[in-house]
Amino acid sequence: MKICMIGAVGHNNYVIEGLEQRPGVTVAGIAPGPNEKDVSALSEACKGIGQRPKVFDTYQLMLDQMSPEIVTIACHFSGHARVAVDSISRGHHVFIEKPVATTLPDYERLRAAYGSANVHLSCMLGIRYEPPFMAAWRAVQRGAIGDVRLMTAQKSYKLGTRPDFYCDRETYGGTIPWVGSHAIDWLRWMSGEEFETVFASHSTHANVNYSDLEVTALCHFTLRNDVFGGVSIDYLRPRAAKTHGDDLIRVMGTTGILEVIGDNVILIDDSGEQQLLLEPKRAIFAEFVDQVRGEGECLVTAEDAFSVTRACLLARQSADEKRIISF
Amino acid sequence: MKICMIGAVGHNNYVIEGLEQRPGVTVAGIAPGPNEKDVSALSEACKGIGQRPKVFDTYQLMLDQMSPEIVTIACHFSGHARVAVDSISRGHHVFIEKPVATTLPDYERLRAAYGSANVHLSCMLGIRYEPPFMAAWRAVQRGAIGDVRLMTAQKSYKLGTRPDFYCDRETYGGTIPWVGSHAIDWLRWMSGEEFETVFASHSTHANVNYSDLEVTALCHFTLRNDVFGGVSIDYLRPRAAKTHGDDLIRVMGTTGILEVIGDNVILIDDSGEQQLLLEPKRAIFAEFVDQVRGEGECLVTAEDAFSVTRACLLARQSADEKRIISF
Repeated sequence: MKICMIGAVGHNNYVIEGLEQRPGVTVAGIAPGPNEKDVSALSEACKGIGQRPKVFDTYQLMLDQMSPEIVTIACHFSGHARVAVDSISRGHHVFIEKPVATTLPDYERLRAAYGSANVHLSCMLGIRYEPPFMAAWRAVQRGAIGDVRLMTAQKSYKLGTRPDFYCDRETYGGTIPWVGSHAIDWLRWMSGEEFETVFASHSTHANVNYSDLEVTALCHFTLRNDVFGGVSIDYLRPRAAKTHGDDLIRVMGTTGILEVIGDNVILIDDSGEQQLLLEPKRAIFAEFVDQVRGEGECLVTAEDAFSVTRACLLARQSADEKRIISF
Repeated sequence: MKICMIGAVGHNNYVIEGLEQRPGVTVAGIAPGPNEKDVSALSEACKGIGQRPKVFDTYQLMLDQMSPEIVTIACHFSGHARVAVDSISRGHHVFIEKPVATTLPDYERLRAAYGSANVHLSCMLGIRYEPPFMAAWRAVQRGAIGDVRLMTAQKSYKLGTRPDFYCDRETYGGTIPWVGSHAIDWLRWMSGEEFETVFASHSTHANVNYSDLEVTALCHFTLRNDVFGGVSIDYLRPRAAKTHGDDLIRVMGTTGILEVIGDNVILIDDSGEQQLLLEPKRAIFAEFVDQVRGEGECLVTAEDAFSVTRACLLARQSADEKRIISF
């Protein structure tokens, strides 16, 4: 199987990890996304796992020449949708950085392109595959906490030094879609309910010259059946904190509560409190490869990618316009 | 100093603890609040600390006969405001269970009564006095995390067995005011900012025959200066959980983050992560007694009691009407 990689931004590590687990897959080419120049970091990452892709100046040229089965896309965030549409229209399966679009018109275009093609699509909501989140989800699935009623989730990152394109809403897309998308995904994934409304707030206060970049955000989702989900998002995690990110989710059900805190998953139910055992980590891109081969299913479906992206964009709009938005 | 106690519901333990620390204070009388019958539990609690109050059939009779300096009020929640107005209009200082009113008209009446009298008023937002919360607040006060930008708070309780008056919105007032008031107080207390808007949701789903009682709630507050605060409230904590309640707050500032989790307070800043030392617990009612005597100040001011009560009632209204409410 031949794949091409577009863009040297974002979570290409998911692709690299997947390639390590599926040795039959070859990276035939790499190319920059729109307005990107340098893909040397991606080139190095490929070399690190014994891949020797050809480097192209433009992704269009690469796709025309290489005809890959799968295209992976992780460029400047505003480019995700356009590059994905270009790839899908050539008949390639796509594995896209999240959010898969940074504007609603781009979202609609991508959705339409996907709808009229016969390709597989997934996106890099890879935290689902982290063992603590996987264990929590499996516990919910087996009924360990009854019906999910209320959820709170957190994404807290160090700001560090970010590329220039984070400073511009047009290229960055906003903190709710970029950082928040994971947590927004967990709400829908854990509860199995669809979003009904969102009210959100975000602020560029204290963003240390990062111009448009929102440093704090808070989202309030209502889902079907009176299920509620709160998401807090920030770039305020201090430099000296132990980890880059502090991902948390708490899922409250009718018969128990699940908490993912760092590498731990705590289940509290009528038999008391226990820490759940974790299974070895699986690789999201490896499972997407399996899906394309007809040999399995990636946990992140095309429907998941679209629903979460739309939820992010409506949340951002809610925060911009300071009003409740219905789905 | 002579005090009278009205009602055998709620957190009279704050009063009992305070009395133990201020031996010069005598409980002269106790009486039921409106629609209450039995104050024997309160009578027993008083006996337990060597107090022998006279028991009255009605609080009005008690106030007329005893002329106490301070009246403490912890009756059916919808009675707080009325009993407080009756007490204030007789010139007594009042220490009231929170929320100090369960309807906006009652809130306005109480505020007006307080405004036209010359009495001290505080309320049982006693979690401020818990050593972890006190330590977190002191750390914020000394600038340990810079300017507060984002907060998330949690109140999670076991439902257990509740008196009948919890089943009726009219007497209970709602879960956001009853359980949420503490967390809503923390947002304003920790940040030092005033509320600007609220959007909230609550649900009676899964309330096991408790009729009007909301089992889950989620509140999204915006405060001045683009500060945001999320509050999650539930009665879903399993019977076998280690503690009755699971109170949490996370306060994110421009230079650090504070987390109160159980008995621990974690400060994360540019020097790393550390657990803060706790000071011995002080007693809220003891400090209210001091304030009345002109010898100190209770941490919960009348303005705090009113602001938090109004915030609770507007949040409840927001959840009932599914709309954003401005303060």
